[in-house]
Amino acid sequence: MLNFNFYNPTKIIFGKDTIPKIKNLIPESAKVMLTYGGGSIKRNGVYDQIIHALDGRHVVEFGGIEPNPDYDTCLKAVAQVKAEGVDFLLAAGGGSVIDGTKFIAAAAKYTEPDPWDLLLNASLIRDALPLGTVLTLPGTGSEMNGGSVISRHSTTEKLFFLSDHTFPRFSILDPETTFTLPARQFANGTVDAFVQVLEQYLTYDVDAPLQDRFSEGILLTLIQEAPKVEADPRNYNARANIMWCATNGLNGWIACGQPQDWASHMIGHELTALYGVDHGQSLAIVMPGVMQHQRGQKRKKLLQYAERVWGLRGEDESCIDQAIAKTEEFFRSLGVGTRLADYRIPAESAPLVAARLTERKMLLGEHQAIGRKEVEQILSLRT
Amino acid sequence: MLNFNFYNPTKIIFGKDTIPKIKNLIPESAKVMLTYGGGSIKRNGVYDQIIHALDGRHVVEFGGIEPNPDYDTCLKAVAQVKAEGVDFLLAAGGGSVIDGTKFIAAAAKYTEPDPWDLLLNASLIRDALPLGTVLTLPGTGSEMNGGSVISRHSTTEKLFFLSDHTFPRFSILDPETTFTLPARQFANGTVDAFVQVLEQYLTYDVDAPLQDRFSEGILLTLIQEAPKVEADPRNYNARANIMWCATNGLNGWIACGQPQDWASHMIGHELTALYGVDHGQSLAIVMPGVMQHQRGQKRKKLLQYAERVWGLRGEDESCIDQAIAKTEEFFRSLGVGTRLADYRIPAESAPLVAARLTERKMLLGEHQAIGRKEVEQILSLRT
Repeated sequence: MLNFNFYNPTKIIFGKDTIPKIKNLIPESAKVMLTYGGGSIKRNGVYDQIIHALDGRHVVEFGGIEPNPDYDTCLKAVAQVKAEGVDFLLAAGGGSVIDGTKFIAAAAKYTEPDPWDLLLNASLIRDALPLGTVLTLPGTGSEMNGGSVISRHSTTEKLFFLSDHTFPRFSILDPETTFTLPARQFANGTVDAFVQVLEQYLTYDVDAPLQDRFSEGILLTLIQEAPKVEADPRNYNARANIMWCATNGLNGWIACGQPQDWASHMIGHELTALYGVDHGQSLAIVMPGVMQHQRGQKRKKLLQYAERVWGLRGEDESCIDQAIAKTEEFFRSLGVGTRLADYRIPAESAPLVAARLTERKMLLGEHQAIGRKEVEQILSLRT
Repeated sequence: MLNFNFYNPTKIIFGKDTIPKIKNLIPESAKVMLTYGGGSIKRNGVYDQIIHALDGRHVVEFGGIEPNPDYDTCLKAVAQVKAEGVDFLLAAGGGSVIDGTKFIAAAAKYTEPDPWDLLLNASLIRDALPLGTVLTLPGTGSEMNGGSVISRHSTTEKLFFLSDHTFPRFSILDPETTFTLPARQFANGTVDAFVQVLEQYLTYDVDAPLQDRFSEGILLTLIQEAPKVEADPRNYNARANIMWCATNGLNGWIACGQPQDWASHMIGHELTALYGVDHGQSLAIVMPGVMQHQRGQKRKKLLQYAERVWGLRGEDESCIDQAIAKTEEFFRSLGVGTRLADYRIPAESAPLVAARLTERKMLLGEHQAIGRKEVEQILSLRT
C-alpha cells in the first residue's frame, strides 16, 4: 500500500424527508445564497422544501448554473455574493451546480483580480465561503469532496481544482429527490460514478486488497441496482443505493493508498469542451479505449476486475476482452453511446484532443506515460 | 436502507515514516500532554520519534494507562492536565490509551464534580481538549471515531460514550510501529476488528448492498492478511492492510444506514469487568454464541456471510453451522480461545452476567430482544 493522507469533514445526512434539517445546519444569522441550475428543483419540490425550511431567514437566489458550469456564469454569482454580503452558499442540484458553487465560494474570498488563477493553481485557495448542498443528481461525488471542475466556454477550456477549503459543511442526500430525474441524467450519473471508480481501481497492484474490495463493491452494486431504477424510477432503495455508491466513488475513500489513473476523465473533458458531449457520455466513449490500450500495464487488475465484477475466471486475454465488452454493454444498457460516432464526433477529434493535452504538457495515466501519441491511439479505437 | 447521518473529521496520515508529521499537526504554542500505556513505546522507538518531532515544544507525559483504562487512572491525568495548563493531548498506543485520552479530554472540560456522569450521559460532553493519536495497536478503531470505553475497576463497571467532541484531530497510522507487537495483542486486535464488523453486518437485511460489500471486504481481508503477519511479523503490507481494516471497522462507514447489534460487546464487557479476560478474548467467546442463538433472526445475513466470506453456498442450516465453525476456527488459529473454559471462567458466569445487564436495564441486539434469559442461554452455549 502507498502512504496516504485522508481527510473529509463533510457531514452527510442521508434519507427521505431530510431536507428540513438544513434549518439546523445553516447558522441562523447567515445571509444565504441558494444556487441551482436550470430550474428542475422548482418542478420537483426541492425548491419549496428548501424555502420552507429557511422561512424567515435571509435568502437570495442565483439560478442558471449550467451543466459543465461556466466560468463567466460563476463570476456573475461572485459579484452578487459581494454586492449582497452573502456569507453562506447552499447548492441544490447535481455535480455541476455543486462544482460551480465551490468555485464561487473560493473566488468570493480571492482578492487578486483574476479568479481563473485558482483553476491553474489550487494552492492559491486559502479561504472560501462555507457551503452546504442538497444533492438531486448523483454521479460526480462532488457532494462529499473538495473538488470542482469549471469550464470556460469562451476558450473551450475545462479545468479543475481540489482544496480542503471547499468541502461542503454538509450534504443532504434524499433519494426521493431523484425520482423524477430524466433518464439521460440518471444514465450519465451512473456512468460517471462507475468510471470514477475504475479510474482509482484499474491501475497497477500495490497490495491494497481492502481498497480493491471497496471499489469492487461499488461497481457490483451499481451493476445490480441500475436496472432496478430503469424498471421502476420510484424504487426508493435502488435510488438510495445508487446515490450512496456515487458518493463513495469520489470521497477519497477508495483512493487511499492506491495509484490513480484519470486519463479517461482528462481526455473526456476535452471531448466535452470541444464537442459539447455530456460528461458521462465522454467517459463511456473513452474508458473502454483506455482499458484496451493499457491492457498490458493494467493486466493484473483487469483480470481481477473480470473475475470479481463480471464473474469471468481465467488468466487469458479473452477474459480481458470480455470484461471490456461487458463494461461497454453496461453503459449501452443505460442508453449511453460508447462510440464517437454515436455523437457524430469526427475521427479528426483524435489528433485534435491529443494536441490540446500536449499543449498543456499533460502526461496521463498512473504511470504518466499516456502522451500525445497514446491519446490519439486511444481515441482512434473509439470511432 | 435506513436514514443515517455520517460525520468523521479525523485526518488520517497513513504509512511508514509518518510520525515526524505530528510537528506540523500540533499547534506550535500548544502545551502537550503525551499519554501512553505500559511503556512499550519506549522500547519500540515510537517514544523517541515523538519526542524528536516535538523537540523544543512544551511536552509533559502521563504514562501507565492500562488495558481497559481505569477511571481513577484517567482522573489522575485530568488533575495533571489542570495543574500544568495542558491544552493538547497526544495519545500514543492502542485503543485503551486512546479511549482513556478521549475521556481525559472530555473530563478536563467538565465543570461538574463527578466526570463519571459523562459515561452515564454522553450529551453532557459539550467540549473537550483537542487530541491527536499515534496508533501502535490496531483493533478498536478508536483512532478514527469519537467513542471511548472506560472501566471503573473499583466497582467492576465498564461503560462507554460517543461524542463528536472527542474525535481525534489527526491519527498517525504507521504500520511499522506494529512490527514488535506481542502475538497476543495482535491476535486480540484482529479478533476485535473482525467482531466489530460482524456487529454491524450480521443483523437483518435492509437492502443496503454497498455497506454489506464493504463489511465483507474487511472480513475477507482480515482472513487473508492475518496469517501473513503470523508467518512474518515484519511483513509491511500485511501489517498495513490489517491496520487499515481495523480503522474501517469502526469509523462509522460500514454502519451507515444499517441496523447494528453489539450484543457480543455488551456481554463481553461484563466478562472483562468480572474475570479480567482481554477484550478480544471476550468477543471470541461470545460472538459464536450470539450467531448460534440468533440464527433465526439473522438467517439471511448468516447465509450471505457463509457464501461471500467463507465460500459456503447453499440455503440450508448446515451452511450456517459451518460458517460459525469457520469463524471460531479463525479466532483459534490466531491463538485466541473461544470458550469460557479456555480462560477458566466458570459456568456460573452466565446467570451472573445476565443479572448485571438486567440490573442496567439493557436489552441487547438489533431487535432489543436479548434480555436476561437470552444472555444466560448465549453464555451457556460457550462453556
